[in-house]
Amino acid sequence: MRQAAKRVETTLSQALAQPTSGAEKLFAAMRYAALGPGKRLRPALVYACGQALGGRAFDPASCDAAAAALECIHAYSLVHDDLPAMDDDDLRRGRPTCHIQFDEASAILAGDALQTAAFELLLASSTESALKLNLLQELAVAAGGRGMVAGQAIDLDAVDKTLDLAHLERMHRLKTGALIRASARMGALLGGADCGQLQAVTRYAEVIGLAFQVQDDILDVTADTATLGKTQGADAARNKPTYVSLLGLDGAREKLDGLHGQAIDALAQLDGETRLLRQLADYIVQRSH
Amino acid sequence: MRQAAKRVETTLSQALAQPTSGAEKLFAAMRYAALGPGKRLRPALVYACGQALGGRAFDPASCDAAAAALECIHAYSLVHDDLPAMDDDDLRRGRPTCHIQFDEASAILAGDALQTAAFELLLASSTESALKLNLLQELAVAAGGRGMVAGQAIDLDAVDKTLDLAHLERMHRLKTGALIRASARMGALLGGADCGQLQAVTRYAEVIGLAFQVQDDILDVTADTATLGKTQGADAARNKPTYVSLLGLDGAREKLDGLHGQAIDALAQLDGETRLLRQLADYIVQRSH
Repeated sequence: MRQAAKRVETTLSQALAQPTSGAEKLFAAMRYAALGPGKRLRPALVYACGQALGGRAFDPASCDAAAAALECIHAYSLVHDDLPAMDDDDLRRGRPTCHIQFDEASAILAGDALQTAAFELLLASSTESALKLNLLQELAVAAGGRGMVAGQAIDLDAVDKTLDLAHLERMHRLKTGALIRASARMGALLGGADCGQLQAVTRYAEVIGLAFQVQDDILDVTADTATLGKTQGADAARNKPTYVSLLGLDGAREKLDGLHGQAIDALAQLDGETRLLRQLADYIVQRSH
Repeated sequence: MRQAAKRVETTLSQALAQPTSGAEKLFAAMRYAALGPGKRLRPALVYACGQALGGRAFDPASCDAAAAALECIHAYSLVHDDLPAMDDDDLRRGRPTCHIQFDEASAILAGDALQTAAFELLLASSTESALKLNLLQELAVAAGGRGMVAGQAIDLDAVDKTLDLAHLERMHRLKTGALIRASARMGALLGGADCGQLQAVTRYAEVIGLAFQVQDDILDVTADTATLGKTQGADAARNKPTYVSLLGLDGAREKLDGLHGQAIDALAQLDGETRLLRQLADYIVQRSH
């Protein structure tokens, strides 16, 4: 994960280094959002899946643009999600959120431009045309109104509502799952995955995506604000349904164990070096923030 | 323009017809923003440039995805531009703005998903791979932090500042010019333009893009709110520099005539049927809203 983080930060740092003249504040806000502290989970998935499928011939540089593109989409979604009209959060990754550090207008525009930057990064890469179009397709479908943004819309509507487990899961599959799934699939495609391998990677990514969210909900009630880097208990305070509110803390932990097991099972279907993917699955259920 | 409007509305209407389950409000807001009344200038430019370059073999269906993609980017930019934290407008095209009709969160998300939809539309088209990648590249560069969003950022910073004419022009070249330029270039590329033709189309689009903005500034002080469909005098009230505030009304009209002449000159460099492009240039300087 550290190596993935370093690569993606270098790529993003270069892409955002030269602001458009007159738009220095916009670029400062984009850099603040994209290059602040973060787990870089999506880039880590891209590189790990690329390596698992690509084997010895795998060159991590081939994944740099995809990893950076996914991090841009993720960063933009956090910036917009934190806005006063949305989740109204002041703290993210231990720092003031983008609209607090800059202002609301800059945060809206920085999010907008980070979304475009994701496509620009992929388009500017040296990836072969057919593969590049596949990657763009994965990214667009996962990010838009059939993916992440739909999940955010469902999530916003869920405040003060009783979602049952199936609806909660569906929301998370879209809101965070779609991009995590796309990260794994894009890495696998870059590693040259065949159809069966792509299916196994997809299954793996779907379950670790849900596991990530279950652990998020557990941490929201068990960790403190300083460890989390965001406001502890925020979901509960907002009356948002969570795995913990629906299953209880023990039920959520059981769910997490089950998902972890499914991820390991999915990896067993994959011929290739899956050590890194196994470690990522372990990290997701064990992380403390 | 009517034909272009009809084609693009059909394409967008089909693309946004089936909401993601649970995200019905998001899709309603997307449709409201993308399919409300509008001039559809960018789609008109795509089809007109496609026809001018493609000649008798030109099939307007080949431009549908590009036209719809450009209208999505335009619509999203208006939705975000109208937000309280940005221009704070209640009225757009004679109707309540998206965040008034729905709510701020829905407007932010609808804008976000419309941006992604632009890329999804182009990606889903049957355009040949190399051309599709060129079109995606034109769109991304024009829409992002080196294009439209940079222009919006510069525009926001310009409130209560004295921009000179060169800075005002640069802001408009980015804020509205970049997408108008991309519309013409994408149409020309779809029509099979060679390098010289693409240059002439680009020059034409750059000057009509500026002319469009000069006429906008003139209408802001000469037309009434009902005709404009947006709040008359809004720029002046916001202390934004405009062509009228910098050149006076007569000076702005002279500037408009000059740009119109340059557009006609650029068309003279273009072998092909340029009647529609001539009419579009005329429309832009003569329009009353």
